Amino acid sequence: MHEIKPIGTIHSPHYSIEDMPIQPKGASDVEGYVIVDEKYIDGLQNIEGFSHIYLLYSFHEATRTELLVTPFMDKQKRGVFATRSPLRPNHIGISIVKIKRVEGNKVVVEGIDILDGTPLLDIKPYIAKFDTVKECTSGWLQASDEEIFKKRSDNRFG
Amino acid sequence: MHEIKPIGTIHSPHYSIEDMPIQPKGASDVEGYVIVDEKYIDGLQNIEGFSHIYLLYSFHEATRTELLVTPFMDKQKRGVFATRSPLRPNHIGISIVKIKRVEGNKVVVEGIDILDGTPLLDIKPYIAKFDTVKECTSGWLQASDEEIFKKRSDNRFG
Repeated sequence: MHEIKPIGTIHSPHYSIEDMPIQPKGASDVEGYVIVDEKYIDGLQNIEGFSHIYLLYSFHEATRTELLVTPFMDKQKRGVFATRSPLRPNHIGISIVKIKRVEGNKVVVEGIDILDGTPLLDIKPYIAKFDTVKECTSGWLQASDEEIFKKRSDNRFG
Repeated sequence: MHEIKPIGTIHSPHYSIEDMPIQPKGASDVEGYVIVDEKYIDGLQNIEGFSHIYLLYSFHEATRTELLVTPFMDKQKRGVFATRSPLRPNHIGISIVKIKRVEGNKVVVEGIDILDGTPLLDIKPYIAKFDTVKECTSGWLQASDEEIFKKRSDNRFG
Protein backbone atom coordinates (compact mmCIF):
# COMPACT_ATOMS: atom_id res chain seq x y z
CA MET A 1 0.00 0.00 0.00
CA HIS A 2 1.03 3.53 -0.81
CA GLU A 3 1.46 5.98 2.01
CA ILE A 4 -1.30 8.61 2.11
CA LYS A 5 -0.34 12.14 3.10
CA PRO A 6 -2.19 15.47 3.09
CA ILE A 7 -1.58 17.62 0.01
CA GLY A 8 -3.20 20.72 1.50
CA THR A 9 -5.92 21.95 3.83
CA ILE A 10 -9.64 22.69 3.42
CA HIS A 11 -10.99 25.89 4.97
CA SER A 12 -14.68 26.50 5.66
CA PRO A 13 -16.98 28.36 8.04
CA HIS A 14 -17.78 25.02 9.74
CA TYR A 15 -15.77 25.01 12.97
CA SER A 16 -17.63 22.24 14.77
CA ILE A 17 -18.94 18.83 13.71
CA GLU A 18 -22.32 19.82 15.12
CA ASP A 19 -24.79 21.93 13.17
CA MET A 20 -23.08 21.45 9.80
CA PRO A 21 -24.82 20.88 6.49
CA ILE A 22 -24.71 17.13 5.89
CA GLN A 23 -23.92 17.25 2.19
CA PRO A 24 -22.77 19.87 -0.36
CA LYS A 25 -26.37 20.22 -1.60
CA GLY A 26 -27.28 21.44 1.89
CA ALA A 27 -24.45 23.96 1.72
CA SER A 28 -24.90 25.36 -1.77
CA ASP A 29 -24.48 28.94 -0.55
CA VAL A 30 -21.49 28.21 1.71
CA GLU A 31 -18.12 29.39 0.45
CA GLY A 32 -14.81 27.92 1.49
CA TYR A 33 -11.38 27.41 0.00
CA VAL A 34 -8.68 24.84 -0.45
CA ILE A 35 -5.00 25.59 -0.03
CA VAL A 36 -2.87 23.12 -1.98
CA ASP A 37 0.74 22.80 -0.81
CA GLU A 38 3.03 24.99 -2.96
CA LYS A 39 4.96 21.99 -4.23
CA TYR A 40 1.84 20.64 -5.96
CA ILE A 41 0.78 23.93 -7.57
CA ASP A 42 1.51 22.75 -11.14
CA GLY A 43 -1.07 20.00 -10.65
CA LEU A 44 -3.80 22.68 -10.55
CA GLN A 45 -3.24 23.74 -14.16
CA ASN A 46 -6.43 23.59 -16.28
CA ILE A 47 -8.64 22.95 -13.28
CA GLU A 48 -10.48 26.24 -13.79
CA GLY A 49 -12.05 24.76 -16.93
CA PHE A 50 -14.18 22.52 -14.73
CA SER A 51 -17.16 23.95 -12.89
CA HIS A 52 -17.14 21.21 -10.25
CA ILE A 53 -14.50 19.10 -8.53
CA TYR A 54 -14.36 16.20 -6.12
CA LEU A 55 -12.50 16.90 -2.92
CA LEU A 56 -11.12 13.78 -1.23
CA TYR A 57 -10.21 14.36 2.38
CA SER A 58 -9.57 12.75 5.73
CA PHE A 59 -12.43 12.69 8.23
CA HIS A 60 -9.78 13.74 10.73
CA GLU A 61 -12.15 14.06 13.70
CA ALA A 62 -13.54 10.55 13.26
CA THR A 63 -11.78 8.43 15.84
CA ARG A 64 -13.54 5.10 15.50
CA THR A 65 -15.17 2.70 13.06
CA GLU A 66 -18.77 1.50 13.34
CA LEU A 67 -20.08 -1.03 10.85
CA LEU A 68 -23.71 -0.12 11.58
CA VAL A 69 -24.66 3.55 11.82
CA THR A 70 -27.84 5.62 11.89
CA PRO A 71 -27.51 8.18 9.07
CA PHE A 72 -28.61 11.79 9.61
CA MET A 73 -31.42 11.32 7.09
CA ASP A 74 -32.73 8.09 8.61
CA LYS A 75 -33.97 6.60 11.86
CA GLN A 76 -32.57 3.09 11.69
CA LYS A 77 -29.14 1.53 11.55
CA ARG A 78 -27.63 0.83 8.14
CA GLY A 79 -24.41 -0.80 7.01
CA VAL A 80 -21.74 1.90 6.96
CA PHE A 81 -20.92 1.20 3.27
CA ALA A 82 -24.56 2.06 2.45
CA THR A 83 -24.07 5.48 4.10
CA ARG A 84 -21.73 8.46 3.87
CA SER A 85 -20.95 8.37 7.61
CA PRO A 86 -17.37 9.27 8.61
CA LEU A 87 -17.15 6.20 10.86
CA ARG A 88 -15.92 3.93 8.04
CA PRO A 89 -12.85 1.66 8.23
CA ASN A 90 -10.84 4.16 6.15
CA HIS A 91 -11.86 7.67 7.18
CA ILE A 92 -11.92 9.12 3.67
CA GLY A 93 -14.65 11.56 2.60
CA ILE A 94 -15.63 12.84 -0.83
CA SER A 95 -17.61 15.99 -1.63
CA ILE A 96 -18.49 17.54 -4.96
CA VAL A 97 -18.07 21.33 -4.80
CA LYS A 98 -18.31 24.16 -7.31
CA ILE A 99 -15.22 26.16 -8.27
CA LYS A 100 -15.65 29.93 -7.91
CA ARG A 101 -12.07 30.91 -8.79
CA VAL A 102 -8.48 29.76 -8.67
CA GLU A 103 -5.80 32.08 -7.25
CA GLY A 104 -2.39 30.42 -7.36
CA ASN A 105 -2.52 27.54 -4.91
CA LYS A 106 -5.89 28.62 -3.54
CA VAL A 107 -9.12 27.22 -4.96
CA VAL A 108 -12.23 29.07 -3.78
CA VAL A 109 -15.26 26.81 -3.80
CA GLU A 110 -18.98 26.89 -3.11
CA GLY A 111 -21.18 24.21 -1.56
CA ILE A 112 -18.78 23.10 1.13
CA ASP A 113 -19.95 20.65 3.80
CA ILE A 114 -16.50 20.00 5.22
CA LEU A 115 -15.04 20.91 8.60
CA ASP A 116 -12.53 23.77 8.70
CA GLY A 117 -8.94 22.51 8.90
CA THR A 118 -9.65 19.18 7.19
CA PRO A 119 -6.61 17.56 5.54
CA LEU A 120 -7.01 17.44 1.74
CA LEU A 121 -6.00 14.19 0.03
CA ASP A 122 -6.89 14.75 -3.62
CA ILE A 123 -8.75 16.89 -6.13
CA LYS A 124 -10.36 15.28 -9.19
CA PRO A 125 -12.43 16.94 -11.89
CA TYR A 126 -16.16 16.18 -11.97
CA ILE A 127 -16.72 15.01 -15.55
CA ALA A 128 -20.39 14.72 -16.45
CA LYS A 129 -19.79 12.05 -19.09
CA PHE A 130 -18.04 9.86 -16.51
CA ASP A 131 -19.84 10.73 -13.30
CA THR A 132 -23.52 11.33 -13.95
CA VAL A 133 -25.66 8.25 -13.50
CA LYS A 134 -28.94 8.84 -15.27
CA GLU A 135 -30.96 5.95 -13.91
CA CYS A 136 -30.29 4.87 -10.40
CA THR A 137 -31.97 3.95 -7.13
CA SER A 138 -30.94 5.34 -3.76
CA GLY A 139 -31.99 2.66 -1.27
CA TRP A 140 -33.04 3.85 2.16
CA LEU A 141 -32.61 7.52 1.32
CA GLN A 142 -36.09 8.85 0.64
CA ALA A 143 -35.59 12.45 1.77
CA SER A 144 -36.82 15.36 -0.28
CA ASP A 145 -34.47 18.02 -1.61
CA GLU A 146 -35.86 20.35 1.01
CA GLU A 147 -35.10 17.98 3.88
CA ILE A 148 -31.52 17.50 2.65
CA PHE A 149 -31.09 21.25 2.29
CA LYS A 150 -32.32 21.92 5.81
CA LYS A 151 -30.77 19.02 7.68
CA ARG A 152 -27.84 19.81 9.98
CA SER A 153 -25.45 17.43 11.72
CA ASP A 154 -25.26 16.55 15.39
CA ASN A 155 -22.34 14.97 17.23
CA ARG A 156 -23.25 11.33 16.64
CA PHE A 157 -20.17 10.71 14.50
CA GLY A 158 -17.72 12.62 16.70
CA MET B 1 -3.52 11.40 9.68
CA HIS B 2 -5.37 8.13 9.92
CA GLU B 3 -3.70 5.04 8.64
CA ILE B 4 -5.23 3.75 5.40
CA LYS B 5 -5.51 0.00 4.93
CA PRO B 6 -7.20 -2.21 2.33
CA ILE B 7 -10.65 -3.47 3.34
CA GLY B 8 -10.85 -5.99 0.51
CA THR B 9 -9.86 -6.68 -3.08
CA ILE B 10 -11.34 -5.80 -6.48
CA HIS B 11 -11.47 -8.53 -9.13
CA SER B 12 -11.92 -7.85 -12.83
CA PRO B 13 -11.02 -9.27 -16.24
CA HIS B 14 -8.38 -6.49 -16.61
CA TYR B 15 -5.04 -8.17 -15.90
CA SER B 16 -2.76 -5.52 -17.41
CA ILE B 17 -2.70 -1.72 -17.29
CA GLU B 18 -2.57 -1.71 -21.08
CA ASP B 19 -5.70 -2.05 -23.19
CA MET B 20 -8.16 -1.36 -20.38
CA PRO B 21 -11.29 0.76 -20.64
CA ILE B 22 -10.35 4.19 -19.29
CA GLN B 23 -13.55 4.82 -17.34
CA PRO B 24 -16.57 2.79 -16.15
CA LYS B 25 -18.63 4.20 -19.06
CA GLY B 26 -16.17 2.49 -21.42
CA ALA B 27 -16.67 -0.74 -19.51
CA SER B 28 -20.43 -0.81 -19.13
CA ASP B 29 -20.61 -4.47 -20.16
CA VAL B 30 -17.66 -5.60 -18.07
CA GLU B 31 -18.48 -7.60 -14.95
CA GLY B 32 -16.24 -7.87 -11.93
CA TYR B 33 -16.61 -8.31 -8.19
CA VAL B 34 -15.42 -6.97 -4.91
CA ILE B 35 -14.50 -9.15 -1.94
CA VAL B 36 -14.82 -7.25 1.32
CA ASP B 37 -12.85 -8.70 4.25
CA GLU B 38 -15.09 -10.88 6.42
CA LYS B 39 -14.65 -8.64 9.44
CA TYR B 40 -16.39 -5.77 7.60
CA ILE B 41 -19.33 -7.81 6.30
CA ASP B 42 -21.92 -6.03 8.51
CA GLY B 43 -20.98 -2.76 6.80
CA LEU B 44 -22.54 -4.11 3.58
CA GLN B 45 -26.07 -4.24 5.01
CA ASN B 46 -28.63 -2.28 2.94
CA ILE B 47 -26.17 -1.72 0.10
CA GLU B 48 -28.32 -3.75 -2.31
CA GLY B 49 -30.90 -0.94 -2.22
CA PHE B 50 -28.55 1.21 -4.24
CA SER B 51 -28.13 0.60 -7.95
CA HIS B 52 -24.69 2.25 -8.07
CA ILE B 53 -21.76 2.60 -5.69
CA TYR B 54 -18.45 4.42 -5.59
CA LEU B 55 -15.44 2.19 -5.23
CA LEU B 56 -12.42 3.91 -3.71
CA TYR B 57 -9.19 2.05 -4.29
CA SER B 58 -5.45 2.27 -4.42
CA PHE B 59 -3.81 2.72 -7.84
CA HIS B 60 -1.37 0.07 -6.62
CA GLU B 61 0.63 -0.14 -9.85
CA ALA B 62 1.29 3.61 -9.95
CA THR B 63 4.81 4.07 -8.68
CA ARG B 64 5.39 7.78 -9.19
CA THR B 65 3.75 11.19 -9.13
CA GLU B 66 3.65 13.56 -12.11
CA LEU B 67 2.08 16.98 -11.71
CA LEU B 68 1.58 17.37 -15.48
CA VAL B 69 0.19 14.43 -17.44
CA THR B 70 -1.26 13.83 -20.90
CA PRO B 71 -4.70 12.26 -20.35
CA PHE B 72 -5.84 9.36 -22.54
CA MET B 73 -8.54 11.54 -24.07
CA ASP B 74 -6.23 14.47 -24.87
CA LYS B 75 -3.00 15.33 -26.68
CA GLN B 76 -1.50 17.92 -24.35
CA LYS B 77 -0.26 18.03 -20.81
CA ARG B 78 -2.71 19.02 -18.08
CA GLY B 79 -2.41 19.52 -14.34
CA VAL B 80 -2.88 16.13 -12.69
CA PHE B 81 -5.73 17.47 -10.50
CA ALA B 82 -7.61 18.34 -13.71
CA THR B 83 -7.34 14.69 -14.80
CA ARG B 84 -8.17 11.24 -13.47
CA SER B 85 -4.61 9.96 -14.03
CA PRO B 86 -3.26 7.51 -11.42
CA LEU B 87 0.00 9.51 -11.14
CA ARG B 88 -1.38 11.81 -8.42
CA PRO B 89 0.33 12.58 -5.10
CA ASN B 90 -2.04 10.19 -3.29
CA HIS B 91 -2.70 7.22 -5.54
CA ILE B 92 -6.41 6.94 -4.80
CA GLY B 93 -8.91 6.15 -7.56
CA ILE B 94 -12.69 6.36 -7.63
CA SER B 95 -15.07 4.58 -9.99
CA ILE B 96 -18.85 4.49 -10.07
CA VAL B 97 -20.07 0.96 -10.80
CA LYS B 98 -23.45 -0.74 -10.96
CA ILE B 99 -24.40 -3.40 -8.43
CA LYS B 100 -25.60 -6.66 -9.99
CA ARG B 101 -25.97 -8.62 -6.76
CA VAL B 102 -24.61 -9.05 -3.25
CA GLU B 103 -23.64 -12.53 -2.01
CA GLY B 104 -22.34 -12.37 1.55
CA ASN B 105 -19.07 -10.45 1.42
CA LYS B 106 -19.01 -10.50 -2.40
CA VAL B 107 -20.47 -7.62 -4.40
CA VAL B 108 -20.82 -8.39 -8.10
CA VAL B 109 -20.64 -5.21 -10.19
CA GLU B 110 -20.90 -4.06 -13.78
CA GLY B 111 -18.96 -1.31 -15.51
CA ILE B 112 -15.59 -2.02 -14.00
CA ASP B 113 -12.52 -0.15 -15.28
CA ILE B 114 -10.24 -1.31 -12.47
CA LEU B 115 -7.21 -3.62 -12.59
CA ASP B 116 -7.66 -7.12 -11.18
CA GLY B 117 -6.20 -7.45 -7.69
CA THR B 118 -6.62 -3.77 -6.80
CA PRO B 119 -6.80 -3.06 -3.05
CA LEU B 120 -10.25 -1.73 -2.07
CA LEU B 121 -10.30 1.22 0.36
CA ASP B 122 -13.98 2.11 0.65
CA ILE B 123 -17.48 1.64 -0.75
CA LYS B 124 -19.95 4.55 -0.69
CA PRO B 125 -23.49 4.64 -2.09
CA TYR B 126 -24.09 6.77 -5.18
CA ILE B 127 -26.97 9.01 -4.11
CA ALA B 128 -28.47 10.94 -7.01
CA LYS B 129 -29.69 13.79 -4.82
CA PHE B 130 -26.13 14.33 -3.54
CA ASP B 131 -23.99 13.35 -6.49
CA THR B 132 -25.63 14.40 -9.73
CA VAL B 133 -24.52 17.82 -10.95
CA LYS B 134 -27.07 19.05 -13.44
CA GLU B 135 -25.20 21.99 -14.91
CA CYS B 136 -21.48 21.69 -15.21
CA THR B 137 -18.56 22.23 -17.57
CA SER B 138 -15.86 19.68 -18.20
CA GLY B 139 -12.83 21.73 -19.22
CA TRP B 140 -10.45 20.14 -21.69
CA LEU B 141 -12.54 16.98 -22.05
CA GLN B 142 -14.41 17.33 -25.33
CA ALA B 143 -14.67 13.66 -26.29
CA SER B 144 -17.89 12.15 -27.52
CA ASP B 145 -19.57 9.27 -25.70
CA GLU B 146 -18.44 7.01 -28.51
CA GLU B 147 -14.79 8.01 -28.14
CA ILE B 148 -14.92 7.39 -24.38
CA PHE B 149 -16.58 4.04 -24.94
CA LYS B 150 -13.96 2.92 -27.44
CA LYS B 151 -10.83 4.35 -25.86
CA ARG B 152 -8.40 1.88 -24.28
CA SER B 153 -5.40 2.56 -22.07
CA ASP B 154 -1.72 2.23 -22.89
CA ASN B 155 1.16 2.00 -20.44
CA ARG B 156 1.83 5.74 -20.04
CA PHE B 157 0.84 5.68 -16.36
CA GLY B 158 2.65 2.45 -15.48
